Amino acid sequence: MIGIFDSGVGGMTVARAIEQLCPGFPLVYLGDIARTPYGSKSPAIITEYSHRNTEFLLKQGAKLIVIACNSAASTASTFLQSHYSQSIIDVIAPAVAKAAMVSSNGRIGVIGTRATINSGLYEQRLQASLPGCRVYSQACPLLVPLVEEGWLERRETKMIVKKYLHPLRDKQIDTLILGCTHYPLLKSMIAPRIGRRVHIIDSSVEVALHLKKILETDDLLRTTLYAPDTPSRFFVSDIPAPVHALASKIFGRTVLLEKTDV
Amino acid sequence: MIGIFDSGVGGMTVARAIEQLCPGFPLVYLGDIARTPYGSKSPAIITEYSHRNTEFLLKQGAKLIVIACNSAASTASTFLQSHYSQSIIDVIAPAVAKAAMVSSNGRIGVIGTRATINSGLYEQRLQASLPGCRVYSQACPLLVPLVEEGWLERRETKMIVKKYLHPLRDKQIDTLILGCTHYPLLKSMIAPRIGRRVHIIDSSVEVALHLKKILETDDLLRTTLYAPDTPSRFFVSDIPAPVHALASKIFGRTVLLEKTDV
Repeated sequence: MIGIFDSGVGGMTVARAIEQLCPGFPLVYLGDIARTPYGSKSPAIITEYSHRNTEFLLKQGAKLIVIACNSAASTASTFLQSHYSQSIIDVIAPAVAKAAMVSSNGRIGVIGTRATINSGLYEQRLQASLPGCRVYSQACPLLVPLVEEGWLERRETKMIVKKYLHPLRDKQIDTLILGCTHYPLLKSMIAPRIGRRVHIIDSSVEVALHLKKILETDDLLRTTLYAPDTPSRFFVSDIPAPVHALASKIFGRTVLLEKTDV
Repeated sequence: MIGIFDSGVGGMTVARAIEQLCPGFPLVYLGDIARTPYGSKSPAIITEYSHRNTEFLLKQGAKLIVIACNSAASTASTFLQSHYSQSIIDVIAPAVAKAAMVSSNGRIGVIGTRATINSGLYEQRLQASLPGCRVYSQACPLLVPLVEEGWLERRETKMIVKKYLHPLRDKQIDTLILGCTHYPLLKSMIAPRIGRRVHIIDSSVEVALHLKKILETDDLLRTTLYAPDTPSRFFVSDIPAPVHALASKIFGRTVLLEKTDV
């Protein structure tokens, strides 16, 4: 199975993209709702949680891990990749590769949680992929709670998006990475405010495309993971009342959430 | 020592009020930042965390526990009070007693997190204290993240406060309970929007006043807890970068945070 973890249900945007692009490859998802959000927590605690989540997914039979949460990926991916022999794909590398490819002027914006932006990992990897590029990063800590409240069309959300994007407006960026799984849900609000000509890169879609390519080229991995009759499973470490509706909304179809202790 | 726990540093409004009203009684505080916030989580998980927090404080030498977090108090206080022989005071009872005393027309508003409002505990206790009263409750899930961002004076915060208070505006309430430790920081924004004649009850101040009365009347407890030479201690389960500044701001003086595993 393909293991995917996130701090909550936001990573279901990644699960959904993988299900659509890689049919026949069953998923095992873990949303760590009991400890959500990660983006405001310390690198030490995010790494600890990411480690536990990976252990859980491997025990469930995952043969490859996707770190769907940008906060976890930016903080813990180096540790996890060195600690495990299994393939560990994070949501950051494919978005960086795409940005390096589409940017013409080498001026790239990144928005994310505080943990993601403070880690500096997007900036570091963009510099490695596109030496000399200019990266402008902006933490947008209120966007996750706004999305989780379902305030996707509200005037208050528009004002807050505008405020966060303001420092990026005069930087002549031609590419903006949505460095958080929740942000694609605000894409129609972000696009006109950053400028219609700016390429917007959805890290969820890019990681799914990247995985698709790997499965097309790596015969061993494809054979190991292909199991069209095995149903995908979705675990969460807490089930607060509104989460079923939110998960199904994000995933695009009804999903059964199973409660587990991590 | 007087044990106090909260999901994060918001409960320091309670610790501060207790330190000011009950000098000479050392505190041991626990902020469960590693799992914050509680207000959006399920009753089962909030009860589990509250149980662990109480165990930790008792091990640190607490002889009395104050549940400073409204979400924890509304969900777990009944369980904790039946499970432990020690005095367990929650932040809700004193606010309810005060509201029942000051309300002339028996129309009382309550604002809090989703966990607090969904529990129905304020409503239930208000009905018991003031039979026949009308209680109007409103969950305000975005106010905690706004306060934690320090957006205390922002236009966006004003608009969101106004939106949340709107359903309470035409209910002719004469009393409003701030049922979350973060909300007193928004009092100057809430007061003009709910109406200057409405009594605003700060659950943090009320629980400190209640504790002061207990210490004045219960000789045994006062003797047990009085230790003017013992310094107060402040533990947190995670230390993200901005938390020292926020804790000191809320507490009103510099505090040393000690990291612990709960």
